[in-house]
This record gives sequence, C-alpha cells and structure tokens, in this order.
Amino acid sequence: MARQERAVRTRQAILVAAASLFDEVGYEAATISEILKRSGVTKGALYFHFSSKEELAQAVLGGQLGAVPEVPAQELALQEAFDEALLLSYLLSRREPAVRGSIRLTVEQGSAKDGLDRQEPMKAWVDHSAAFFEKAKARGELLPHVDVTAVAKMFVGAFTGVQMLSKIMTDHEDMPERVADLYQHLMATIASPGAMVGMDFSPGRGEKIHQEAIKLNPDDPTLEVTDDPGN
Amino acid sequence: MARQERAVRTRQAILVAAASLFDEVGYEAATISEILKRSGVTKGALYFHFSSKEELAQAVLGGQLGAVPEVPAQELALQEAFDEALLLSYLLSRREPAVRGSIRLTVEQGSAKDGLDRQEPMKAWVDHSAAFFEKAKARGELLPHVDVTAVAKMFVGAFTGVQMLSKIMTDHEDMPERVADLYQHLMATIASPGAMVGMDFSPGRGEKIHQEAIKLNPDDPTLEVTDDPGN
Repeated sequence: MARQERAVRTRQAILVAAASLFDEVGYEAATISEILKRSGVTKGALYFHFSSKEELAQAVLGGQLGAVPEVPAQELALQEAFDEALLLSYLLSRREPAVRGSIRLTVEQGSAKDGLDRQEPMKAWVDHSAAFFEKAKARGELLPHVDVTAVAKMFVGAFTGVQMLSKIMTDHEDMPERVADLYQHLMATIASPGAMVGMDFSPGRGEKIHQEAIKLNPDDPTLEVTDDPGN
Repeated sequence: MARQERAVRTRQAILVAAASLFDEVGYEAATISEILKRSGVTKGALYFHFSSKEELAQAVLGGQLGAVPEVPAQELALQEAFDEALLLSYLLSRREPAVRGSIRLTVEQGSAKDGLDRQEPMKAWVDHSAAFFEKAKARGELLPHVDVTAVAKMFVGAFTGVQMLSKIMTDHEDMPERVADLYQHLMATIASPGAMVGMDFSPGRGEKIHQEAIKLNPDDPTLEVTDDPGN
C-alpha cells in the first residue's frame, strides 16, 4: 500500500473509532486512549493526524456530510433527496456508528467551553439540501412559489428531530418509516403534481438503495453494517 | 402564605433553577450546590422535595409538557395546536430557561448510566399532540385519510429538530419563523381545505398569544420573560 493511501486509511480508522465512541459515551466522556484501542493505531499515528480530542471531534463533525454515501442518480432530483435521507435512516436503523456518533456530537451542546463548532455540519446539511432543491427547481419539479432556502432549513430541521425522536423511542428502529412519513408529507407541499406522482416513498426502498450505494462506493466503510441490527 | 402553597412555590423555584442550570451546563456538570444558590432555598428544603440530582432532573423532564402554558381557545383545534407551538417558540426565542433546560435534557443522551428516562417527555408530547389532532378530527378539520398517531409523531419529531437547528444556528432567534414555516407546510397535508383557509400562521402571532396566555395563567413563572432577548 502506498504511504499516502495508508495515511488516508489510518485517518479514516481513527475517525470511525472516535465517532463510534462519541456515539456511545458522548464527547466529554470519550478518551484518546479508548479511541487508540478501538482503532488499533499507535499514539504517534493518532497525534500525527489530530493534535487533540477537540480537533478529532471537529473532524468527525466536518466529515458528517461526507459520511453519507452517494446514492444512485434518479430521473427526479426529489427522489434522490428522499433516497439519501432514506439511506441515512437505514444506516441509523442498522446502528452505523460513524453516522450516529457524528449526529450525537451535533445535537449535544456539551459544556459551553468545549469549543466545538456545531454550526459547521448543520450549515453543510442546509447547503447540501438546498442544492438538491435547486436542481429540482431547474428541472421543473417544484411548485412555483417554493423558497428553496427556507425549505432546505425545514427539511434539515425536521429530519434531525425525527431521527432524535426515533432514537429516543425505538433506538432508531422505526427511523425509515418515520422519515418516509415526513418526506411524503413535506414533499407534497413543494413538488409539482407531475413530480409527486413519480415519487416512491416506500420505507423498504432503503435496503435496495443501500445495495446500490455499495456498488457505487465499494470502499466506503460507513456502508458496512452488521448483520444483527441489535448491535 | 399557607404551608402547602409555600411548599408548591419552593418546589417550583427549585425546578426552575435546576432547568436553567441544565440549560446552561447540561446534566453532568450541574451541581446541587449551584441549584441551591440559584433557587435561594435551603439544602433541607431541596432534599425534602428531591432526594437526588437524578430525581430532580426527572421531575424537570416530567414537567416539560406542564411547563407549556395553556393557550386561548380557538374555533379551530388546529389553530390551537399551532398557537401552542408558536408560544413555545416565542418563549424559546426569548430564552425562557425552564423550557430550554428541559428540552436540553431530553435531547442529550448523557452518559448511558445517568438513568434518566427521556421517553417520558417525548411520549407525553406525542400523546398531547395526538389529542389535539383527535379533537380536530372530531370537528371535521382533518382530511379523511389522516393517521393521527403517525401525524402526531411527525409533528413532535419535526418540531424538536427545527428547534434544535434554530438553537444551533441562531440561538433560537429565528424559532417562531421556522415553526410557522414548518406548520404551514405540514398542516397543508392534513387539514381539510375549509380548515386550512381559516388558519393564521403568521410568526408575529406569538407575542399576542403570549399576552393572552399571561391573562389565562397569571401565576405561571414560565411566562415571565426578560425584556432583553439577548439574555
């Protein structure tokens, strides 16, 4: 393995180990030594990539959006937006640690002094979501009055809370169903009738999208899920 | 003041002080001694009402729904549901500590061992929300196909996330606007056309509802907001 590739893999291993630990115990209680143990990298290697726990946590936050794998292209941009949300929901329902850890970091305020910038991932999500809606608008999939920025904030906010409620009530078990419900309702208020009839909102679609995403992103560690959703 | 009334006021003062501290520093970092300082009650009085920080936090969580003041009756049950969400948003945008502290406790997972039951307030919100929608259904305000339980989960989840995004991005400043946006969209997918045209979704309505709620609940400490929204 070339040196550069090895460095990328080491960095990725540290980030996944850190995210899974943040998911389990939160930022405050997480320790560098436990991250070393889980990632199997040396202390020197870790400090080569990250100078502190704070820097590491910020990298997990910054990598949140990038941790969502690319979904297959669809005729409707709105379908792609839904598919991405559904894939994320599917991964959460299968307890994918990198995504869960990053989300936990974002929603917990932590101590006022922890210095983490939680606006970064939220802003990235809103921009990313707005880009989907701009694409949909350009393709004539949106009703004429739609304010893309306000709608992007609404979708990101609503998704965040639905995942939180699902986490608290069912440990993410019912997440695909809740997100399908949410998107079906919200999309109906922004999609043109022609786009709306072409949408597939079935929650079961998540598994199919996951299979297709694996083919598109063969080396993406976030797509590896355990067979037992109870883990 | 009668002994019983004094006890109720003392308990309330402890709960408000605890909630404001949880809002600022989170559950882990909050201390009984700081709660004593803020509430101005004696140690003996506090331990008469609550045997531990955990019990106190659970009481804050359990009182979350009760902390939302009654809103004036409206012709449309859906308007009342929106008004309540808007009043809560208004109080959050004015940094009302009792509501903010309780919400922070709910959404933070804390350490796995803190033993707090975060399902309790969420379940209470879903049931409360479902009751509003049942009332709306009985009055013919809903479209025929609406699944009240699923819709209640959707509203509670979406509201939770929109408040979180607003908190992270604007420290709740834009909360009334975001909630008005969300409700206007979601209500359009469940309300009958006749009910929909009768709805007032203006974000500025929050201040008016707040004034009316004060008249309805003259002794409710959660309705006291500071004049300076920057505090």
